Amino acid sequence: MATLNKNYNKLQGAYLFLEITKRVNDFLKKNPNTEIMRLGIGDTTEPLTKTVVKGLLSAVKKLGNKKTYTGYGEAQGDIRLRSALSDFYKKRNIDLSVQEIFINDGAKGDCANIQSIFGVDNVVAIADPVYPVYVDSSVIAGRTGEFINGKYEGLVYMECNEKNNFIPVPPKQKVDIIYLCNPNNPTGSVATKEQLKTFVDYAIKNKAVIIFDVAYSEYISNPSLPKSIYEIEGAKKCAIEINSFSKWAGFTGVRLGWTVVPLDLVVEDGQKGKVHSLWSRRQGGSQGTMFNGASNIAQEGALAVLSPLGQEENKKLIAYYMDNAKLIKKSLTEIGLQVFGGENAPYIWIKTPYNLNSWEFFDKLLKEAHVVSTPGSGFGKEGEGYVRLSAFVDKKNVKKALESIKKNLKL
Amino acid sequence: MATLNKNYNKLQGAYLFLEITKRVNDFLKKNPNTEIMRLGIGDTTEPLTKTVVKGLLSAVKKLGNKKTYTGYGEAQGDIRLRSALSDFYKKRNIDLSVQEIFINDGAKGDCANIQSIFGVDNVVAIADPVYPVYVDSSVIAGRTGEFINGKYEGLVYMECNEKNNFIPVPPKQKVDIIYLCNPNNPTGSVATKEQLKTFVDYAIKNKAVIIFDVAYSEYISNPSLPKSIYEIEGAKKCAIEINSFSKWAGFTGVRLGWTVVPLDLVVEDGQKGKVHSLWSRRQGGSQGTMFNGASNIAQEGALAVLSPLGQEENKKLIAYYMDNAKLIKKSLTEIGLQVFGGENAPYIWIKTPYNLNSWEFFDKLLKEAHVVSTPGSGFGKEGEGYVRLSAFVDKKNVKKALESIKKNLKL
Repeated sequence: MATLNKNYNKLQGAYLFLEITKRVNDFLKKNPNTEIMRLGIGDTTEPLTKTVVKGLLSAVKKLGNKKTYTGYGEAQGDIRLRSALSDFYKKRNIDLSVQEIFINDGAKGDCANIQSIFGVDNVVAIADPVYPVYVDSSVIAGRTGEFINGKYEGLVYMECNEKNNFIPVPPKQKVDIIYLCNPNNPTGSVATKEQLKTFVDYAIKNKAVIIFDVAYSEYISNPSLPKSIYEIEGAKKCAIEINSFSKWAGFTGVRLGWTVVPLDLVVEDGQKGKVHSLWSRRQGGSQGTMFNGASNIAQEGALAVLSPLGQEENKKLIAYYMDNAKLIKKSLTEIGLQVFGGENAPYIWIKTPYNLNSWEFFDKLLKEAHVVSTPGSGFGKEGEGYVRLSAFVDKKNVKKALESIKKNLKL
Repeated sequence: MATLNKNYNKLQGAYLFLEITKRVNDFLKKNPNTEIMRLGIGDTTEPLTKTVVKGLLSAVKKLGNKKTYTGYGEAQGDIRLRSALSDFYKKRNIDLSVQEIFINDGAKGDCANIQSIFGVDNVVAIADPVYPVYVDSSVIAGRTGEFINGKYEGLVYMECNEKNNFIPVPPKQKVDIIYLCNPNNPTGSVATKEQLKTFVDYAIKNKAVIIFDVAYSEYISNPSLPKSIYEIEGAKKCAIEINSFSKWAGFTGVRLGWTVVPLDLVVEDGQKGKVHSLWSRRQGGSQGTMFNGASNIAQEGALAVLSPLGQEENKKLIAYYMDNAKLIKKSLTEIGLQVFGGENAPYIWIKTPYNLNSWEFFDKLLKEAHVVSTPGSGFGKEGEGYVRLSAFVDKKNVKKALESIKKNLKL
C-alpha cells in the first residue's frame, strides 16, 4: 500500500495570494467599476529588451535548422553561458570556475532541491519574515516538526524587525543549514559586508552551510553593499549561492537561473569537492540523475542578457522599477507612513499605522485607496504589522496608486 | 555541522556514457581518420518542424512587446496548453480534466520528484533493464539499501528478458510504487492492454501506485497497443502518467513535458484527490511550493505541436526515425543477429552473438564496424548480453553504419 509523505500535512495553507484574490473580488463585487491598482505581486511587467529578444529568436531559428539543431545540452548548462557567468563574477573580483556554476530552469526549484544533498536531520535556520520556499521545502523534506503558534518546531527563526534594521543575525545555537535571502523578499533590506561576515564566520566555525538567494542582487545600487556572498572572505568554504535572471532581465516567464556550488565548500568530513560532487550527481555532468538541463532557448537568451548591450539594457529595466520604488517610498513617507526597503531592492516594506495588523491595513488600503498590497504576515510571524508593496508595476499605475493613497487613505 | 545525504554514496558511478566516450576516443587515437557512426545516444537529431518554430518565434515576440508580455504563468501550466492536452486525450477516449494535468519542464525531473509525495518507507519496483532515473532517484530518496551483486537491496526488480518478451510482470510480493517505462527504454518493448491490465489490477488490489513513463508513446504505430495507461479500465484509480514533448517533437533541448495525476487516484486512506492535492501543493496552483512553472516560450511551442498541423508534421518526424529503426532491424536480422524492439519504439535491442557480454560486443562493433552502441548492462543486470542501438540518427549515418556492419562485422 502506497502511503503519502506525512510532512505535507504540516504545511500551512498556501492561502496568501488566494485570500488576496478573494478579498479583491469581494470588494469589486460590492464596488463594480472601481479601478484597482495592483502593487502586491512580485512579477515583472516590462517586456524583454531588444538584445535579449534577438538572442531568443536566434536560438529558436537554430533549432529549426538541421545544421544548427541541438538536442540535449549538458545538464549542468551550456558551457558558453557558464563561461559568461564566470567572467561576470570575475569583473567583481570573484573567481569561480565553470565547473562551479550550475544552470537551472528557475531559482525556486534549486532553493528547494538543494536540500536533497544534505542529511535529513540537519537543522535549518531561516530569516523571519522571508520568501516561503525555504520553510516549505524544509517541511516537505522532514526537517521540521509541527506548526505551533506561528512557527515550525525544529526550525530556527532569525527574527528581522525594526530593532535590527530587518537584517538577521546568526543564531545563538548551532544550526547546519542557513537560508539567507539578500536583498530580502519581502522587507527589501540588504546586509552589509560586515553583517554577512558574521554569517560566514559562524558557518565556518560550525561547519554549517549558507544557502544564499540573491535573486534581487542586481537591484543593489549602493556600491558598498555586496551583491554576492563570495565578496566575503571565506564564503567559498561555506556558501552556496542561487541567482536568477527572473527579476534582473524579466525572465519570470522565460525561466532561467544558476546555482554556484564552490569546489572549496566543506561540510562534515572536511573533504573539498564532496558537496559539489553530490549536486553535480543530481543536476550536473552530461546527464544529471534528476535533471536534463535547462532550455537551449532560455540559455541563449541569458547569454544575450550577459552581453555588454544586454547588461546595459537591463540596467535601464532595473532603473525603471527602482524609480517606481523611489516614488512609492517618497510618497508614503510624505503622508507619514513608516517605510523600509525600496532603495536597493524592488520591495517596499510598510509598517502599518495605528497598530493595525497586516490584513487590517491590507483591507484599509484596498477599501479606501483601491490599492492591493501583500500582507506581511504571509511571510512569517515577524511580518505581522507590515504590508509589502512591489515596484514591479507599470509606472502609470504606480502614479495612480500613489495619488489615490494620498487623496483617499484616512490616516 | 551540516552533513551529507548518505544515500548518494550508494549510487553506482554514472560511468556508462563516460566509458563509451573514453573507449571511442581511445579507438580514434589508435585509428585516426576513421569515421565513427554514433548510434548509441537517445537524443533527437532532426530540427523542430515549421509550425513549432512559428509558435516559438511568436512566443518570443510576445515577450518583447509590452502589450503581450507575460511574467509568471500558473505553476501548473498554461491553461490553454492543459486544455489542448485534455482534448488530445479526449480523442483517445480518455477523459482528463485540466486540473489533472501538470506541465513540467522535462519529464526526468518529474519522474524523480514525484517520489517526494510518497512515504519514504514505500517499496519501489522497477523493470530490469530500464532507464536509470527511477532507480537512482529511489536511492537518493532513501528507498533502497546498498548495491550488492548488481542490484540494490530493498528495490524489487521485475526482470525483462527473452522469456517474457521483455515485458515485466507484476511482482509476486507486495510493493507500493511501480515504475513502468512503456515503450521501454532500452528494450523498445511495448506492453499490450492485457499486460498492462495485470499491473492495474495488481495496483488496485494492493493500493500501489503505478508511475507510467510514456515519453516514447507517440512511436507506437500498432493501433492495438495502448499509448496511455488510462486506456486501461481502473487506471485512474492507481496510475500517474508522465509524458514529454522531447522525443515526440524534438524538444530534448526545448524542455517540456507533462504529468497526469488523476483526481480519482487513491492510496492509503482511500481519500480521492489526496495524492493530487500533494502534487498540486508541490508543483501546481498559481505558485507551486517548489516549482514556478515551465517556460512561457516552450509552452507556446507545445501548443503548436498539438495543433492539427503540428501533429501532422511531427508524425513525419517520427516516421523518419522509425524508418531508421526498420532499416536497422532489417539489416541486422539479415546478417543473423537476434534483434528486438524497433517496431513501436525508436530503440533496437540486440542480443550479443557468441555469448559476448555487452561491453565485449560494444568493442567488437566499434573496432570492426566503427559503430557506437550502448551496452545493455548499463541499464541493469538483465541488460547484460545485449546492446542498444538508437534510431535518433541522421539517415545517411544509419545507412553508412549498416553497410559497415554488413561488410566488416565478423560474425
